[in-house]
Amino acid sequence: MSSDSQSLVRSSDPLHSANLIPVLCRQFYQLGWVTGTGDLVYIAPSGVQKERIESEDLFVMDKKTMNLIHSPVSNHKPSACTPLFFNAFTLRNAGACIHSHSQNAVLATMLFDKEFEISNQEMIKGIKKDGSYLPMMYSDRLVVPIIDNTLFEQDLTSFMADAMNSYPETSAVLVKNHGVYVWGKTWQDAKTMAECYDYLFELAIKIKAHGLKV
Amino acid sequence: MSSDSQSLVRSSDPLHSANLIPVLCRQFYQLGWVTGTGDLVYIAPSGVQKERIESEDLFVMDKKTMNLIHSPVSNHKPSACTPLFFNAFTLRNAGACIHSHSQNAVLATMLFDKEFEISNQEMIKGIKKDGSYLPMMYSDRLVVPIIDNTLFEQDLTSFMADAMNSYPETSAVLVKNHGVYVWGKTWQDAKTMAECYDYLFELAIKIKAHGLKV
Amino acid sequence: MSSDSQSLVRSSDPLHSANLIPVLCRQFYQLGWVTGTGDLVYIAPSGVQKERIESEDLFVMDKKTMNLIHSPVSNHKPSACTPLFFNAFTLRNAGACIHSHSQNAVLATMLFDKEFEISNQEMIKGIKKDGSYLPMMYSDRLVVPIIDNTLFEQDLTSFMADAMNSYPETSAVLVKNHGVYVWGKTWQDAKTMAECYDYLFELAIKIKAHGLKV
Amino acid sequence: MSSDSQSLVRSSDPLHSANLIPVLCRQFYQLGWVTGTGDLVYIAPSGVQKERIESEDLFVMDKKTMNLIHSPVSNHKPSACTPLFFNAFTLRNAGACIHSHSQNAVLATMLFDKEFEISNQEMIKGIKKDGSYLPMMYSDRLVVPIIDNTLFEQDLTSFMADAMNSYPETSAVLVKNHGVYVWGKTWQDAKTMAECYDYLFELAIKIKAHGLKV
Repeated sequence: MSSDSQSLVRSSDPLHSANLIPVLCRQFYQLGWVTGTGDLVYIAPSGVQKERIESEDLFVMDKKTMNLIHSPVSNHKPSACTPLFFNAFTLRNAGACIHSHSQNAVLATMLFDKEFEISNQEMIKGIKKDGSYLPMMYSDRLVVPIIDNTLFEQDLTSFMADAMNSYPETSAVLVKNHGVYVWGKTWQDAKTMAECYDYLFELAIKIKAHGLKV
Repeated sequence: MSSDSQSLVRSSDPLHSANLIPVLCRQFYQLGWVTGTGDLVYIAPSGVQKERIESEDLFVMDKKTMNLIHSPVSNHKPSACTPLFFNAFTLRNAGACIHSHSQNAVLATMLFDKEFEISNQEMIKGIKKDGSYLPMMYSDRLVVPIIDNTLFEQDLTSFMADAMNSYPETSAVLVKNHGVYVWGKTWQDAKTMAECYDYLFELAIKIKAHGLKV
Repeated sequence: MSSDSQSLVRSSDPLHSANLIPVLCRQFYQLGWVTGTGDLVYIAPSGVQKERIESEDLFVMDKKTMNLIHSPVSNHKPSACTPLFFNAFTLRNAGACIHSHSQNAVLATMLFDKEFEISNQEMIKGIKKDGSYLPMMYSDRLVVPIIDNTLFEQDLTSFMADAMNSYPETSAVLVKNHGVYVWGKTWQDAKTMAECYDYLFELAIKIKAHGLKV
Repeated sequence: MSSDSQSLVRSSDPLHSANLIPVLCRQFYQLGWVTGTGDLVYIAPSGVQKERIESEDLFVMDKKTMNLIHSPVSNHKPSACTPLFFNAFTLRNAGACIHSHSQNAVLATMLFDKEFEISNQEMIKGIKKDGSYLPMMYSDRLVVPIIDNTLFEQDLTSFMADAMNSYPETSAVLVKNHGVYVWGKTWQDAKTMAECYDYLFELAIKIKAHGLKV
């Protein structure tokens, strides 16, 4: 790794991935979101306080070869989610992927069995069907597959890939007692959809708590 | 559209609509509020991250002719709520209208049938009766009509207008499984009343959860 | 009112009441707190967006004569709570008083009848008994009187005074379906105790929701 | 105490304890966290508004002799938790300890009896077993002892020490109707684990509210 790789994480453009990811990590700190995005894949380190991540803490990986082309000076490792993010990149040609340990996602996996389902909610219109990328309708039934958790995060990779193949229009996979992965063509799409999914998980939980039907 | 229209969204006055709307959008980001206000109508774009809206992202529309007299450079569209905002401007001579997807509003539409009702709560005094513009009393029964949602947001326009005609003193209309529209003479009134309504929706939901009578 | 009264609301000291109140109003915006404090009594205006209050929006009243010695240029009125704040100043020699419409306070008045009661909670130690000003013990039973609400806020004055006379050690009075008044010798005491009361109201509500005994 | 001790609380390094603690106190103000850390022990004062603590408000204590080697000019006292923080330093060689009155911790002590227990949750992996300092597995059963509260905080010291001896792998002790103590080798570890514990307390409470098994 040449010292020139430093330039990969230095930019005066606030929307450059190297500047955007720390901002998004701080913004979504409470939900524990992490994100990779761009032609090159920018990956948050594990073991760093999410609200304190700086540009120079990021890893940069080549999307095709999956080689690390920039590592931070510190001896952190890239997030253990990395192989799962690559599912979104390789199976769906995503531009960004977000992982959350949101309690709304976790509780949804406990209150539903193999699939999270909700219908007739305005916020469903914020979700785009993968493939066609058409936005869903208010009356559509949104289905998100729920896969079992594994002892080690990387072992989820093939189960997540199976779910993605079985649900070709989904842009999210829930993991039992763990959280959710959401992806989109751009970081804006991934972020907006992650917000919509979290809103719908939270709403479904409240609806069930009030004894109503989702 | 002449290039002079740029001046419509440039002002050093922090209370000018072009500066106020981005601030309010950021402030109310969590509740998903958007707002149009003023003699000219300033409209937030759809498809832009609400907390990142800048003055130059706004549309400006002539209140009487409904012609767009300023559009942002980007190829966004004005919010799909625009015809609904105009209900408030044309039917009630409002100066500002706010739309929210607040989960408090959505749950209220699920826990009540055709009308949201609450009485004997101090916060009711924050609501002004449209028409007379007299503030409500503590002991008054606040009633907000709930209309059914439609597949497309613009199709709500006539149903919202019907509800406004049937409830001439209301300053808000709830939409089933969708959210709420709130308007007032000024942006301060619209904002204060939207806060009071949301407080009362949330309180009513909690009161019902505890098995008490609203 | 002489124009010299402007100097009453101008100070470079960040802890001067004229600067402190706007900061506290912004900080506690979500709980709807307002506060009067000091030898002179500084009073927030009604009808101003709490998070936008500036020093020059404040009223200043003489504590003994209750005469207004400074009014803002705008045609706002002092908060309708003013006579209730003066209960704390005249009956208890308080230095500051806070009024909140917190939903925790409101729900507590609905889940309890004439008195809010809680015991065996560490946070009770944050409350000082009025009169002796001794901090309460963990095992003490904290009792806060709940008075009925009235149509007009000023009509609460005598009922609040009655409750203060009947509960000489209380430093708070709850108002049914309305909120709570909390006072202390200094703004720090009033603020700390208001935080402790709100914590205990919220906790008692959760404890009851789980079917446990307070 | 020589005037030279002022230099102990002055540093241009933002990660120096004298600067870090006020930042963390502000950041965790809502959860009521306080923290001591470092070779020297930096202790927040009691009776100061947590979000207003400045470097010069801190006490500095010698870790071995437990002598105060710096006190603020104001006549505040060190936090009453000081002897409990020293349990973590002396019994476990901790580098930092955090005390919280979080309602999640308090409710957990009321919904569980002598031990808080949870299993099969991804967030358990954020907890390190004291001694070996190995991270826990997803399928491990996390157990946190719950000790009874005492009238005076310092009287908890021996009961907390007993629990630490009985549960040699725990990095936290819950106190009935009071809160939780969490410690780690570094402030980063203590902070991350305190966040994980609070997440798990909150999640367990929600799981029980929905009638599910933890």
